[in-house]
Amino acid sequence: MAEEVKLFRTWSSPFALRIVWALKLKGIQYETIFEDISNKSPLLLQYNPVYKKVPVLVHNGKPVSESLVILEYIEDTWKQTPLLPEDPYERATARFWAKFVDDKLMPSIWHVFVTQGKEQDEAIPLAIENLNLIEEQLKGKKFFSGETIGLVDIAFGWMGNLISVLEMVTGLKLIDAEKFPLLQAWMQNLSDVQVIKENWPPHDKLVSKFQAIRETYLATGAPK
Amino acid sequence: MAEEVKLFRTWSSPFALRIVWALKLKGIQYETIFEDISNKSPLLLQYNPVYKKVPVLVHNGKPVSESLVILEYIEDTWKQTPLLPEDPYERATARFWAKFVDDKLMPSIWHVFVTQGKEQDEAIPLAIENLNLIEEQLKGKKFFSGETIGLVDIAFGWMGNLISVLEMVTGLKLIDAEKFPLLQAWMQNLSDVQVIKENWPPHDKLVSKFQAIRETYLATGAPK
Repeated sequence: MAEEVKLFRTWSSPFALRIVWALKLKGIQYETIFEDISNKSPLLLQYNPVYKKVPVLVHNGKPVSESLVILEYIEDTWKQTPLLPEDPYERATARFWAKFVDDKLMPSIWHVFVTQGKEQDEAIPLAIENLNLIEEQLKGKKFFSGETIGLVDIAFGWMGNLISVLEMVTGLKLIDAEKFPLLQAWMQNLSDVQVIKENWPPHDKLVSKFQAIRETYLATGAPK
Repeated sequence: MAEEVKLFRTWSSPFALRIVWALKLKGIQYETIFEDISNKSPLLLQYNPVYKKVPVLVHNGKPVSESLVILEYIEDTWKQTPLLPEDPYERATARFWAKFVDDKLMPSIWHVFVTQGKEQDEAIPLAIENLNLIEEQLKGKKFFSGETIGLVDIAFGWMGNLISVLEMVTGLKLIDAEKFPLLQAWMQNLSDVQVIKENWPPHDKLVSKFQAIRETYLATGAPK
């Protein structure tokens, strides 16, 4: 049977980009459906009735949502170019840090991004603390998973590019080479990977988008 | 080599109870270290420096934290009595709902529990909406995973018992048999499982504990 693989995404969603990378790293052919999140398609709402969000992966008619769940599904379904190591402890370590990216690291960086003045000053230490924790995981390694890209690289990868956008929009340097030499080197290593490089959303378009998001938050108050 | 398995837990943590159940279902011998969260042991802080929380599972000297990550580790390490099905799509479905329990369902129920009056009235619809979503997953099934207990049963299992404690403390009936017949039946099925039944924390002690928690929140304001 010919496989039918469809990815519902937006051009800018960092969570959807994880799925793009994983599918391309594994060489899976798929069809892309670009969603407009201000006018979601009936199909997206049908496939992800709980969160009504991208990304959704539809494989032979069956939908999977939540990007870390989709990555596990891709890993379980297509064995080539593994995203997770075989050793149970190494798998747990990768899952722990991928979850940390979603639960702690990204929200703390985001909080810096959507605030200013005293509120931003207060938000920075937590972001730095979380960045230090993830920096330590890169000791002696090219990627979080070693010599090749794995789950944590994919989970945090987009922030590796986004950080330059956020820094440009805020005028604030969060990750510098002096404080975070390993993260700096990792961002470069990641950008050198063909599949990653070829699939970044356009930088200028991201800057405009995030500029607008930041202005909205500054005008209406940051989410707590 | 003799295996060394240690579980750092508290007597009441619902997240730690997940690990107790999983280990017992798989017949793994382990040592329990009961932590006092008001005076955490140096070992706990060493094993879980990121979150400084229970549960932590230590297997042959290597620590794993975050209960859903630990459950995956247990599943990867000890194959007997599987908690996840073999089919990739069914695995993804189980992971999706286990994540939903942590990300959406439990916080929404908790919000009802730590509020009162108008704030509570406003919190109830979201909890009910989430309970409806999970109720639907039980259609035609004894447990979320079918005839035997799996990941979602373990992830949501404690709430199955806790709900009666929360209802007693708040005087509010959130899950009744008329609105949630499948959840009601599931809670009963779960309670009938030997490993589950034998490992509930003492009901009276839970009521006292949650009474105190609710009073503290009502006095100081609920977390947003």
